[in-house]
Amino acid sequence: MDKLDRLGAAQLASLQAEVSARFDAFCRRGLDLDMTRGKPSPQQLDLSAPMLELPGRADFRSDDGVDCRNYGGLDGIGETRALFAAILDVPAANVVVGGNSSLTLMHDALVRALLFGVPGGPGAWRECPQLKFLCPSPGYDRHFALTEHLGFELVAVDMGAAGPELAQVRGLVREDPAVKGMWCVPRYSNPTGISYSAAVVQELASMPTAAPDFRLFWDNAYAEHHLGPAPAPLENVFAACHGAGNPERVLMFASTSKMTFAGAGVAAVAGSDANIADLKRHLAFQSIGPDKVNQLRHARMFPDPAALRAHMQRHAELVRPKFEIVQEVLERELGDSGAAVWTLPEGGYFISLDTQDGCAREVVALAQRAGVRLTAAGATFPYGRDPRDRNIRIAPTFPPLEDIRLAMEVLAVCILWVAVNRRLQTSAQPATS
Amino acid sequence: MDKLDRLGAAQLASLQAEVSARFDAFCRRGLDLDMTRGKPSPQQLDLSAPMLELPGRADFRSDDGVDCRNYGGLDGIGETRALFAAILDVPAANVVVGGNSSLTLMHDALVRALLFGVPGGPGAWRECPQLKFLCPSPGYDRHFALTEHLGFELVAVDMGAAGPELAQVRGLVREDPAVKGMWCVPRYSNPTGISYSAAVVQELASMPTAAPDFRLFWDNAYAEHHLGPAPAPLENVFAACHGAGNPERVLMFASTSKMTFAGAGVAAVAGSDANIADLKRHLAFQSIGPDKVNQLRHARMFPDPAALRAHMQRHAELVRPKFEIVQEVLERELGDSGAAVWTLPEGGYFISLDTQDGCAREVVALAQRAGVRLTAAGATFPYGRDPRDRNIRIAPTFPPLEDIRLAMEVLAVCILWVAVNRRLQTSAQPATS
Repeated sequence: MDKLDRLGAAQLASLQAEVSARFDAFCRRGLDLDMTRGKPSPQQLDLSAPMLELPGRADFRSDDGVDCRNYGGLDGIGETRALFAAILDVPAANVVVGGNSSLTLMHDALVRALLFGVPGGPGAWRECPQLKFLCPSPGYDRHFALTEHLGFELVAVDMGAAGPELAQVRGLVREDPAVKGMWCVPRYSNPTGISYSAAVVQELASMPTAAPDFRLFWDNAYAEHHLGPAPAPLENVFAACHGAGNPERVLMFASTSKMTFAGAGVAAVAGSDANIADLKRHLAFQSIGPDKVNQLRHARMFPDPAALRAHMQRHAELVRPKFEIVQEVLERELGDSGAAVWTLPEGGYFISLDTQDGCAREVVALAQRAGVRLTAAGATFPYGRDPRDRNIRIAPTFPPLEDIRLAMEVLAVCILWVAVNRRLQTSAQPATS
Repeated sequence: MDKLDRLGAAQLASLQAEVSARFDAFCRRGLDLDMTRGKPSPQQLDLSAPMLELPGRADFRSDDGVDCRNYGGLDGIGETRALFAAILDVPAANVVVGGNSSLTLMHDALVRALLFGVPGGPGAWRECPQLKFLCPSPGYDRHFALTEHLGFELVAVDMGAAGPELAQVRGLVREDPAVKGMWCVPRYSNPTGISYSAAVVQELASMPTAAPDFRLFWDNAYAEHHLGPAPAPLENVFAACHGAGNPERVLMFASTSKMTFAGAGVAAVAGSDANIADLKRHLAFQSIGPDKVNQLRHARMFPDPAALRAHMQRHAELVRPKFEIVQEVLERELGDSGAAVWTLPEGGYFISLDTQDGCAREVVALAQRAGVRLTAAGATFPYGRDPRDRNIRIAPTFPPLEDIRLAMEVLAVCILWVAVNRRLQTSAQPATS
């Protein structure tokens, strides 16, 4: 039994007074703290300071002798393709490295599917009477918004501790040919931080789908963003799809946005031979080639995957204390209250917190009154609607440590405020049978 | 009367022998010269060598204090927007600066029009039973290929000395609502090098169009790429469209691809308030922002338009001798022959040559046999089909001067070879009445 449930009316009233006083005190401080977005901090960006003068005045050739300053090379230079091949654990021949945004690569893949269809499919998706996309929730708001914008109906499926709830996923993809794809952030998922289990990956790769051209949009955004002592294990979905006889099923994405510079990284897409051939056939009309100098810059910064991983350790050293302070404050303030539960991610950029049902909007609004901006309640669900109104995404990477501590104290007080008041309202009402 | 027309049978035979001998001599040299693409030369790229170590280790803030390393800023940083505003002669508020490729910006504009429609239009272009795009020809093969790929029917209109032939354009846009747009390279047009006259710009801006959402795709790729003593005059199409009550009609594009690095420049799109608002509304789903560090790099390289223009003068000093050698060789070899005519551009990247009708394919194939690769005959027309089979695009910027001289001698000999043989065949045939 949680602490709040054990309290009598008088104790609740006393707690209410205490929490109200703390809330008022926060309000009087005129705070302005922003916990909304998963951005690297300036200190993290400083780790890549050498990039600002790379590749250097006389260095413009890739290993195969290509002048990176000039046009050409639709799929990127060999060095960065090899780097992403290591990150995604796929052959370099199955990687295309593009510009600065993996979101743009996902957008472009969806647009191509709409206008032209995909390998193994019956034709352009825009010809389908209905289009649906599965959205494990809570999940990444920009994913959901992109598919909504492009005309897909968003179908929420529950996110569990080992990945999306397979019972729901299986039924939807087996029965409905309108379900064309599914968003996946397989490692340190946004926002819960969980990583997909081997069983989940295997099932996603092999499950029967009514749509012959069903696609997993596999956004491995946090592939190298570990906070724990070792990387969270992640089954190789590329191999699993090939092994299951569904080589075309997965499109994998990654970027260096949260490795080097969030605004000036490089992004990559990987897929089967057929998917990559199809991509390049279309890309040839769209571009004369990506920014190869920025790819070279990255290749010089990370001559091999080990250099990249050492760099990511330095990121972890900056990020880990911020995750720890969130845990410390939440545990201290709410640990035995029953007013909230939250995740303990081993990597990534977010912590996911669930209040009691029906409290998240009120908590976020209260925090805003106290000067703490949080990602809008509901943002982690399709159409911005959290059916249980309980999920709050915490993004601790950008603000300074002390801001996070303070923001978490405010958040905890707001959660307690709402929880205590709900209990008081409930106990004041006559029992109904 | 041209020289070839004045020659008798014996003189033609003697010329044939001479030209054949020269052709054979070229073939024996085992040449391998590439005159196919409009790429800057390594020497031109060297002009931007400082870019390879810009912005510098401690320099990452734009004038308004934004950390260019991090996410955000959908429309680009103020400095580069101001630079493109100067290049395109539009307000900076009407400019969005993106990634490295203006072709991609054009692609994206077309894709948005297909999926969503454009301001002032009745809806998504994909709903139209038919879609057509006007292609002034000879023109840019990548433009034509892009619209063909996206499902537009390409409609060739003749390119004249002052721009596209207005009589043709007027009729097509006035009568056919399927005509949704038109490709324009208004200054130093690819490949003829002509610039649109003020009257042409005014007419394109003001002419009645059956499609309410007709768009000029105004690719000012060579806005600053002058070779003559002064820029070719170019009427401001943005102002002309606004003045004519058609502010939404034009989408303008430019890039630094042929100013700094062809593979690592920045590209921009400009349009009316409504067009830019529409663009940004969609862009917000597609990207978290462009590579602002590369934009900052460009801002540091070109602190003002004068710096950019001084830089372009240094380009001109490298490019001008290459254009001159083309003119010199063609004039010497073909000047009074009547076998070909060609343009004398005051800027840009190309020279356009017309053989006599029906000869271009044969000339390009012959040149290939002698080791000189030219852009495929027909490439400058929609669907790669030059109805008169006469146009050949010459791209003199990339190869070294002596290669260009040699390639032009080969080209001239091939042109003479074909012309002389045609005359001999014609005169050998019995006259028919």
